[in-house]
Amino acid sequence: MAAIEPHVEANCKLDGAFRLEAGGELPSPEIRYAIYGEPNHRRDNVILVCHALSGSARVADWWPELFPAVFDTSRYCVIGANLIGSCYGSTGPSSLNPVTGTTYGPDFPLVSIRDMVHSQARLLDHLGIERLHTVVGGSIGGMQALQWAVDFPQRVERAIAIGAAPLSAMGLALNHLQRLAIQLDPAWRGGRYSAGEGPDAGLGLARGIAMLSYKSAELLAQRFARRPNRNGEDPYRSYSERFDVAGYLDHQGEKFIARFDANSYIVLSKAMDAFDLARGYESDREALRRIRARVLLVGISSDWLFPPEDVRDLAQRIRAAGRHGDYAELKSSHGHDGFLADMDQLAPFLTAALWRPAANPVPITRLPVARTANL
Amino acid sequence: MAAIEPHVEANCKLDGAFRLEAGGELPSPEIRYAIYGEPNHRRDNVILVCHALSGSARVADWWPELFPAVFDTSRYCVIGANLIGSCYGSTGPSSLNPVTGTTYGPDFPLVSIRDMVHSQARLLDHLGIERLHTVVGGSIGGMQALQWAVDFPQRVERAIAIGAAPLSAMGLALNHLQRLAIQLDPAWRGGRYSAGEGPDAGLGLARGIAMLSYKSAELLAQRFARRPNRNGEDPYRSYSERFDVAGYLDHQGEKFIARFDANSYIVLSKAMDAFDLARGYESDREALRRIRARVLLVGISSDWLFPPEDVRDLAQRIRAAGRHGDYAELKSSHGHDGFLADMDQLAPFLTAALWRPAANPVPITRLPVARTANL
Repeated sequence: MAAIEPHVEANCKLDGAFRLEAGGELPSPEIRYAIYGEPNHRRDNVILVCHALSGSARVADWWPELFPAVFDTSRYCVIGANLIGSCYGSTGPSSLNPVTGTTYGPDFPLVSIRDMVHSQARLLDHLGIERLHTVVGGSIGGMQALQWAVDFPQRVERAIAIGAAPLSAMGLALNHLQRLAIQLDPAWRGGRYSAGEGPDAGLGLARGIAMLSYKSAELLAQRFARRPNRNGEDPYRSYSERFDVAGYLDHQGEKFIARFDANSYIVLSKAMDAFDLARGYESDREALRRIRARVLLVGISSDWLFPPEDVRDLAQRIRAAGRHGDYAELKSSHGHDGFLADMDQLAPFLTAALWRPAANPVPITRLPVARTANL
Repeated sequence: MAAIEPHVEANCKLDGAFRLEAGGELPSPEIRYAIYGEPNHRRDNVILVCHALSGSARVADWWPELFPAVFDTSRYCVIGANLIGSCYGSTGPSSLNPVTGTTYGPDFPLVSIRDMVHSQARLLDHLGIERLHTVVGGSIGGMQALQWAVDFPQRVERAIAIGAAPLSAMGLALNHLQRLAIQLDPAWRGGRYSAGEGPDAGLGLARGIAMLSYKSAELLAQRFARRPNRNGEDPYRSYSERFDVAGYLDHQGEKFIARFDANSYIVLSKAMDAFDLARGYESDREALRRIRARVLLVGISSDWLFPPEDVRDLAQRIRAAGRHGDYAELKSSHGHDGFLADMDQLAPFLTAALWRPAANPVPITRLPVARTANL
């Protein structure tokens, strides 16, 4: 299947100092974006698709099955934006700091999901998009969709978050160990490695740990069971020979190091950790009361990184705050990756959510302002 | 509470070449053992307690709550034996190879759970113990108990295995990543590190990964939630500051590296991977048909390293093979560590199992011999 190409793919520079929630700033960061389809004359058909940890602005590259089943570009204008901190075109650790003339590397400032969303809002300003028909994403992409609904209630009609909630202690632990793996690699050099000489083994191990959290035990058992590695290795014979699941993880690690930067991994992993809608507001409830969008949260039955109960709890808290928080569950054995793997199930959820009327407009009176720099 | 001391603690040398299932051999390996209580005159009161990955022969050091509630040394003679390959007194990678006069290090041969059990049988021969009243253990200790019941049916009256079954693909994957973590550390040096200069950071990371698999998400959420590290760090402020669960994992890693050897970790982890009762026999069923003991398998409800369904399945296969395979479940939020943490629940199971009559003696006629060296 030929890749679907965006109609526009470009960088947008956010002029001036972009101040960050944790206190740092980025001088004139750039946001890489891709647009599929076109805004209509009312500009009310724009869908912002937020990507997960290793994704990019090129939505059709990583969610191809949704074009055109869900993302019909004759109807909708689909926009993807690469995250600040990533390594797919937006300003990140491997970018040049225009002030110092050197790459940021490990000096890249701490960015939050809120910072990412606020940079996307600046991008939409630049594009002349006032309101979003829908903001949607899975995993970290879902975190962004929720942060959009809370931080920019006037700009979001529908928000869909799949396999996303604040990370539990288990999720925080998994992310921490992944960062340790990268930093354990002698090629890490405190993050000051040269291009092409990064901590490949450490990043590969981090990816291996992450892959386990993206898959369910059931799926791994179905796919690999206790079979020896398919290349003929005999794990009963020597220390170096592997079971099939180990060969798979190593292969996934190798694929990943060819396409991702270790400093970016740490930046995005920390942003994922810090996601908490209550931050900057009086309470979780006050944050959720800001929402004006119709929110759909989708849990994935076998997801143990973002357990469906956590996702359902968040939907309940949104409803308890008097807002529209629907919950649906993807019955999938794929684990967290279900949002990229079980398209036959996911697509109808998304299509239905796009067709639902926006939430009843709630008068925006005395909407508390978030205590954050870029609002 | 003062530690309970064994009545005897000593090393037993197994004279001659101890041949191993995977093909190597160990010249005159030593087994460290500890004995609590004494054999009675019929020698029918001996309980062999098999330890898990990081345990030792000193059973009362790591299962203190079971003395005397379950292991009443006025009635029973409790024997613990340190595993071959471990670093608590038995021959392992940090031992001197008597043939070469240097430490084994990474040249330590591949050992299996079967090898460990066969070395224990030699130890019992040395001690004049023909039959075991009970063999019991959790995790790798449970694997040994089951291997005992299959490989030495005439010598085992009761076998109790807690949180043990052949590892699933998820378990194999977790062990693989732990070994990668050790080998990623530059201090690993292919396993040829000097004493005190081992791959501490890598072993600490391996322990961190393992700790996650030993705990349940529910327990971590209860204990740590999303709280910042208790030492005052603010994970929202910088890359290096941690959440509480990360501080906990790092602390567990530090405690572990002070007491464990990286080469031993790899040896025992590989043995755990390879555990499969069918090996050496025609089939799983033929292996299980050898059992004469009354077997009790205990699953732990929140164990995701050895899911209770896997443990229950094994009990069913034992029954389907016409043997005694009881199943009980520990309702615990502790995860795999439940066998060390939920003593109030476990102790009654064990006490009851010790009091049950041995399985009806099945005539041992034409019992197939395992195709393994030391039988």
